[in-house]
Amino acid sequence: MQGRGGPMFQSFDEASDSTESASRVERLRESLRQAGVDGFVVPRADEHQGEYIPASADRLRWLTGFTGSAGTALVLPASAAIFVDGRYTVQVRAQVDAAVFLIESSVDTPLGAYLREHAKGLRIGIDPWLHTVGEVAALRTAMADAGGELVALKHNPLDRVWQDRPLPPKGLVSLHPITYAGRASDEKLDEIRAALAKAGAGATVLTDPSSVAWTFNIRGSDVPHTPLPLSFALIPQDGRPTLFIDADKLREEVAGALAALVDIAAPDALEPALARLASGQRVMLDHALAADRLREVVEGAGGTVVAGTDPARLPRARKNAVEIEGARRAHLRDGAAVSAFLSWLDAQAPGTVDEIGAAEALEGFRTRFGEADGQPLRDLSFDTISASGPNAALPHYRVNRQSNRVLGRGEVFLIDSGAQYLDGTTDITRTVAIGEASEEARIKFTLVLKGMIAVARARFPVGTRGIDLDPLARLALWRTGCDYAHGTGHGIGSYLAVHEGPQSISKRGMAVLEAGMIVSDEPGYYREGAFGIRIENLILVRPAERIAGGDLDAHDFETLTFVPIDRRMIAPDHLDDGERAWLDAYHAEVLEKIGPRLDGEAKAWLQAATRPL
Amino acid sequence: MQGRGGPMFQSFDEASDSTESASRVERLRESLRQAGVDGFVVPRADEHQGEYIPASADRLRWLTGFTGSAGTALVLPASAAIFVDGRYTVQVRAQVDAAVFLIESSVDTPLGAYLREHAKGLRIGIDPWLHTVGEVAALRTAMADAGGELVALKHNPLDRVWQDRPLPPKGLVSLHPITYAGRASDEKLDEIRAALAKAGAGATVLTDPSSVAWTFNIRGSDVPHTPLPLSFALIPQDGRPTLFIDADKLREEVAGALAALVDIAAPDALEPALARLASGQRVMLDHALAADRLREVVEGAGGTVVAGTDPARLPRARKNAVEIEGARRAHLRDGAAVSAFLSWLDAQAPGTVDEIGAAEALEGFRTRFGEADGQPLRDLSFDTISASGPNAALPHYRVNRQSNRVLGRGEVFLIDSGAQYLDGTTDITRTVAIGEASEEARIKFTLVLKGMIAVARARFPVGTRGIDLDPLARLALWRTGCDYAHGTGHGIGSYLAVHEGPQSISKRGMAVLEAGMIVSDEPGYYREGAFGIRIENLILVRPAERIAGGDLDAHDFETLTFVPIDRRMIAPDHLDDGERAWLDAYHAEVLEKIGPRLDGEAKAWLQAATRPL
Repeated sequence: MQGRGGPMFQSFDEASDSTESASRVERLRESLRQAGVDGFVVPRADEHQGEYIPASADRLRWLTGFTGSAGTALVLPASAAIFVDGRYTVQVRAQVDAAVFLIESSVDTPLGAYLREHAKGLRIGIDPWLHTVGEVAALRTAMADAGGELVALKHNPLDRVWQDRPLPPKGLVSLHPITYAGRASDEKLDEIRAALAKAGAGATVLTDPSSVAWTFNIRGSDVPHTPLPLSFALIPQDGRPTLFIDADKLREEVAGALAALVDIAAPDALEPALARLASGQRVMLDHALAADRLREVVEGAGGTVVAGTDPARLPRARKNAVEIEGARRAHLRDGAAVSAFLSWLDAQAPGTVDEIGAAEALEGFRTRFGEADGQPLRDLSFDTISASGPNAALPHYRVNRQSNRVLGRGEVFLIDSGAQYLDGTTDITRTVAIGEASEEARIKFTLVLKGMIAVARARFPVGTRGIDLDPLARLALWRTGCDYAHGTGHGIGSYLAVHEGPQSISKRGMAVLEAGMIVSDEPGYYREGAFGIRIENLILVRPAERIAGGDLDAHDFETLTFVPIDRRMIAPDHLDDGERAWLDAYHAEVLEKIGPRLDGEAKAWLQAATRPL
Repeated sequence: MQGRGGPMFQSFDEASDSTESASRVERLRESLRQAGVDGFVVPRADEHQGEYIPASADRLRWLTGFTGSAGTALVLPASAAIFVDGRYTVQVRAQVDAAVFLIESSVDTPLGAYLREHAKGLRIGIDPWLHTVGEVAALRTAMADAGGELVALKHNPLDRVWQDRPLPPKGLVSLHPITYAGRASDEKLDEIRAALAKAGAGATVLTDPSSVAWTFNIRGSDVPHTPLPLSFALIPQDGRPTLFIDADKLREEVAGALAALVDIAAPDALEPALARLASGQRVMLDHALAADRLREVVEGAGGTVVAGTDPARLPRARKNAVEIEGARRAHLRDGAAVSAFLSWLDAQAPGTVDEIGAAEALEGFRTRFGEADGQPLRDLSFDTISASGPNAALPHYRVNRQSNRVLGRGEVFLIDSGAQYLDGTTDITRTVAIGEASEEARIKFTLVLKGMIAVARARFPVGTRGIDLDPLARLALWRTGCDYAHGTGHGIGSYLAVHEGPQSISKRGMAVLEAGMIVSDEPGYYREGAFGIRIENLILVRPAERIAGGDLDAHDFETLTFVPIDRRMIAPDHLDDGERAWLDAYHAEVLEKIGPRLDGEAKAWLQAATRPL
């Protein structure tokens, strides 16, 4: 039963098109001449610098055909280039017209270094709404080194030639009730004002729609997979905040409820309002998040920009008791759906299911279990990574009709997916054998599992950062000369973005792991052209019980995700006693928690799948 | 045989004196008025920003009585404060007159934050020779925030009132032969010039005497424990470098040999020479090492400062084959001396040796074994930490006549020491039972040992940083709610500084661990008022053998230190099979390598001390 009847939150059609790139670049060059610049930078970004952007802001895709989630194009008088990271090396070559764009690695040749070399003496334009304060500072230095100039343009010269540009989204906003949010908005505003006072700032602009959503307890529907209301909020130390949002997004009862908290204004009222407020004032902006245009407005009005971090970011990451309870409920529902899916998959003959079919089936189970639980699936939390055989060796693989392949006998199948429910956001990866897996894949799977367990079992002093736990997930792989080229874990929102800062378990994870933070624990292993493995649970940071003889307050993790880990993939000799004990206890808990939600074949499957090793 | 006959490189007299602090601060205030400033910053620093400074530069000690290795005083019109970190909380209270100086934590209340609060509207003077470029930038921002001004003074106002100031040292310089240095100076200069070319700089100033010593293959005798020639070098991309050093330090044959490589000039010729060279030129300075005065000179002459890292730092850290061979030899000699000392200590009745006696005895053994091996002990590499019972709970304890205590039966004794030989610098810590140790101490010792072994056995991909290995040393302690408040390991020079960057194994260790780097591996555990434990070996980063099935080039460590680890301190049940195997193999290697260098009782002791667990 693939459940194809429900709403589908994911499309598998790759609508990329680069046939017009050459003419579009020419039209852009003409527009640049009119704007008085020699070149222009086209980032994959909107005014909010988020991971998901609306079609109306996907200038990079329009210009180049590239559909990845990160990249930048540079158009110069006689050449053009696109910069992407290692995740997109293959995809960019498939999507972008190499006769028009040179393809550069954003790691080996960052844009700034490229400008130093190739933009000597030129005037390079940017749209200051599409770059952060920090990015612009770096680009300005690069252009000064190149003896040229970085020019912030009032009007985006690409928009003037983008004739079929979609309209900005007008997704409806909903109130996020206190039964899910757990804290009232005025309490959150007090916390933000306290942060402003500490920084000696008189106001701040929330530029991240996740921060706006969290602060005002609202959710939106402007971009796929993340319930964000594209909007800004201006929060002064004294007086009422203002929410800058398209009025069409607010039904009357929503507007009415918001009016108790906040003034509402149109998005294009932000600049004049900020200018009015900023005169002689200190305004806090997050240099890593806020558009440089906001800095220009503050300084242009005679104000001072105070560098700070988005004051909603850390409180949002520390989930409150109601959000934690919601996350637990969402994970039981989601765990039942994923377990039912794995049971279904196991019952299909090898060679009869393809990647798209698997992804659709999983969405069907989520829809069914959501409805049965009275919490309908609101969206997927990201495009499902449904990858068999060599496709799974690409950690960010996204199946489309061209790449789709059948899950063949003896192969390994990786499925990384998540759901948005009102009470929580989920993200889980399981890697399973289709029939029987090779010994090599089983050994690598077991090494990855050791890393995943090492993080899940960690106990660490208060003050420990994600960077300090990242190596735990890698040690077993390191011993055999292997590793994986991505972070071990990211933060997750509460019915918000599936990637949320500031915390991460990674080589850049400098944020302290605090109680209430939810992170993923997802080491992997990828053998190019052969197979890929990843195992992912979400885990919650909590105060650890004090140990006799211990000196320090410590944290440990509560596992939130309950879905069997494929026993057929495990090489038991490679686990030590502590690791086996952890796995058996985990599976016992899966059976206890998920068992009552399943019946028939699925329940029998779960009982078998959770047997002790 | 305590060997008290040899030269003693360490004094145990604590010559600190704060009785004149009040009058000295008053005289300094008068001098500040004449200089036209309201306040003044007195760091523990000389013009080279090194860890060891000559008496002529110890302004902080003269003013406050504080003898620690890090601290800063601030004198304001009506108050004065001293800022030290957690290592020196106890010491600063014992040494400094609290009626004159407020005592502040440099971690909780950094100088900049303090200035923002307490120096509003004031003019605060600094000596720009005694602060790095980076420090001055931060202090300048702090004073701007305070509505005041940071004033770089031409003449240090403290020096004008410091009547009994010692003369600068004139320690003789020696040539460091190629048989120890392993690489010719002109080759090293070529490497530095290549770094300049890469940074687009026309010149640099080496401000760290370790870098001068490494580059020109010389050693000096200006400060205790580190064979540094206090000096600067100006290295242009084109043309001969200049060494700025007091001519009295150069015997004729040394001056003659150097003349082939470098021009020699007096230290006070640096400023005019740099100004001449800098005009219209790009000069690379290390903002974390170079005195801000050098930036002023470059910019004052119309030059541009390029921020870079000291170009000698990384090549110096990557020891060459000759230096590595030297380090191995030095460690065998040193290991024999320390083993003989531990054998001697074990033969003394508990309660008959005190901390100073133990430190003197160890130095005696080092002298004896150095002479026997034809490589006399040139110095200790730092003041020996000889700490019994509760004294060992202070990680940076330094025994003096007042604090000296007898090593009592049932106590734990920690001795952290090192030697300077021409072929290498050593640093080793052993913690041993005096008679029999408590079960608690044995369990903590074993947890520390697990951490030490985890680092020593680590195998990690090329590109791994010290920060990635630091948690390995802590995991076993973390599981029991414990930790230690210092880094796990530091870099070590080759007959140079015992603390050498850029690499470290610590929470700040962002430098990649490269083949040829030597680092310490020294986790610990400290129970205040009770006992302290630390176990330290030096380890060398080397290319690891490729493993079948592995994808990546990896590194692992070669252990350099060979001295038994006290078996009486081990709780064997707390070690796993891999850890026991490591320890037994280590002890077998200790016996094989050190055994032939010992005889009589010491040899018998070594055989017993290296038995398998």
